[in-house]
Amino acid sequence: MRIARFSHDDTVSYAFVQKDEEDGKEYLVELSGYPLGGTPVSPTGERFELDGDGIRLLAPVIPSKIYGLAKNYEAHAQYMGEITGMKGTHAPEEMVIFTKPSTSVIGPDDPIVMPSFSTDMNFEPEVAVVIGRIAKNVREEDAMSYVLGFTCVNDVTLRDLQGDDPMWTRAKGFDTACPLGPWIETDLDHTDAKISFTLNGEDVPEASGTTANLIHSIESQIAFISSFSTLLPGDVILTGTPYATGSLKSGDEAIVHVEGIGSLRNVVMHA
Amino acid sequence: MRIARFSHDDTVSYAFVQKDEEDGKEYLVELSGYPLGGTPVSPTGERFELDGDGIRLLAPVIPSKIYGLAKNYEAHAQYMGEITGMKGTHAPEEMVIFTKPSTSVIGPDDPIVMPSFSTDMNFEPEVAVVIGRIAKNVREEDAMSYVLGFTCVNDVTLRDLQGDDPMWTRAKGFDTACPLGPWIETDLDHTDAKISFTLNGEDVPEASGTTANLIHSIESQIAFISSFSTLLPGDVILTGTPYATGSLKSGDEAIVHVEGIGSLRNVVMHA
Repeated sequence: MRIARFSHDDTVSYAFVQKDEEDGKEYLVELSGYPLGGTPVSPTGERFELDGDGIRLLAPVIPSKIYGLAKNYEAHAQYMGEITGMKGTHAPEEMVIFTKPSTSVIGPDDPIVMPSFSTDMNFEPEVAVVIGRIAKNVREEDAMSYVLGFTCVNDVTLRDLQGDDPMWTRAKGFDTACPLGPWIETDLDHTDAKISFTLNGEDVPEASGTTANLIHSIESQIAFISSFSTLLPGDVILTGTPYATGSLKSGDEAIVHVEGIGSLRNVVMHA
Repeated sequence: MRIARFSHDDTVSYAFVQKDEEDGKEYLVELSGYPLGGTPVSPTGERFELDGDGIRLLAPVIPSKIYGLAKNYEAHAQYMGEITGMKGTHAPEEMVIFTKPSTSVIGPDDPIVMPSFSTDMNFEPEVAVVIGRIAKNVREEDAMSYVLGFTCVNDVTLRDLQGDDPMWTRAKGFDTACPLGPWIETDLDHTDAKISFTLNGEDVPEASGTTANLIHSIESQIAFISSFSTLLPGDVILTGTPYATGSLKSGDEAIVHVEGIGSLRNVVMHA
């Protein structure tokens, strides 16, 4: 099932994304209420063509908090070692977790705005986990029951700032640093979700990968994070970027694709 | 003016804290609505004794995000250098900013719960800034017009985790790591606010200080943070702890006091 958040006229609603088998088109089947609030939602009876005039997909959630994993693929850890002049770098044994604030979230087709104080902004395509219910001290074997679904994320990073900004608060937390979307997919094989990235229409094969190569599984991420912090419905975990990253420049079109979820497209502009 | 958030029976309300000159008692003058929402609030006509039965002060805000400054007093930077075996450490020239999530916030008299995975939890008494309106790219000279007021904070830190947790996500972001209160004081000389700390009834003089010794002023903090991140009403900035910190153990009573604001009391318990 796909759960989207969208605007039409001046209204923001949630919807199921469904294909009409008769006309072959995809529709947003509008819902009343907030599917992450623990209260029942029901169709309003209205539906809108996904590509219809005045229809705009929004980030599927505005999380109360976003956690992300640094170097959660061995290939990415080695790549980062190479570009920072520290060849032979391995991923840390224990999870290293960073945060992004809710003000960094943007939706599909929203612009990624490169701050004037950076000259090296990088893309990082990833699978994002969306939490469905309150999670504290969750065991790995129970972790998936706390997950509503998955979406695509571009964990945009100001590479040139990471050194002087040891907590990455600016480097990963600036406004627009967290494109999320296009919707929440509740049915995904999260143990082998294939990630790819397209820059200006061209596939970037060295940015691709699969969650089959995650060092710390999604289950262990939820267990670890919920051991110190209560995860709330709508909270998001960025599971890591699989391999190489690269520069984003003004005018670029960046598309994160996860097989089984869909594509998250954003364009880049200067502040 | 003092703005408090409190619960009585099953209701959570905001209030002005006012002294009745006739009986000499302090009262919570209940308000309708949310004073940080940009809409007018007005007294409901009800008031409650501050010390009354069933009255409980809550954290005065649940911020969408919390930023904190690391080593924003030279005395604290040198103290940290000494306890980490790096004598002669100075504060970094550029601001180093960390974050805490909203789930770390607790209110006056709430327990600070020491996680089972730490054996060295420290207090850090500080002045916290509460943002009053949306702030982006604010100039230093305009910064104070974005501030609603100030409150006390204990920037509780798991000192033994900071090494393996380079973003301090666990060390400063665990549940209950951000006691805030007792209320928001809108009238404070923020250029010389005197901070002190009491542990189990005894003053800890080496933890005290004044914002007169801040390396980066509150104005420059707001300007810097708002240059990369949009501050929302209710967002909080922890301005730094002045000097030495120390251990908190189960059963301890920790009181942060800021002259002109008041006292924030919490007790410590084990998970």
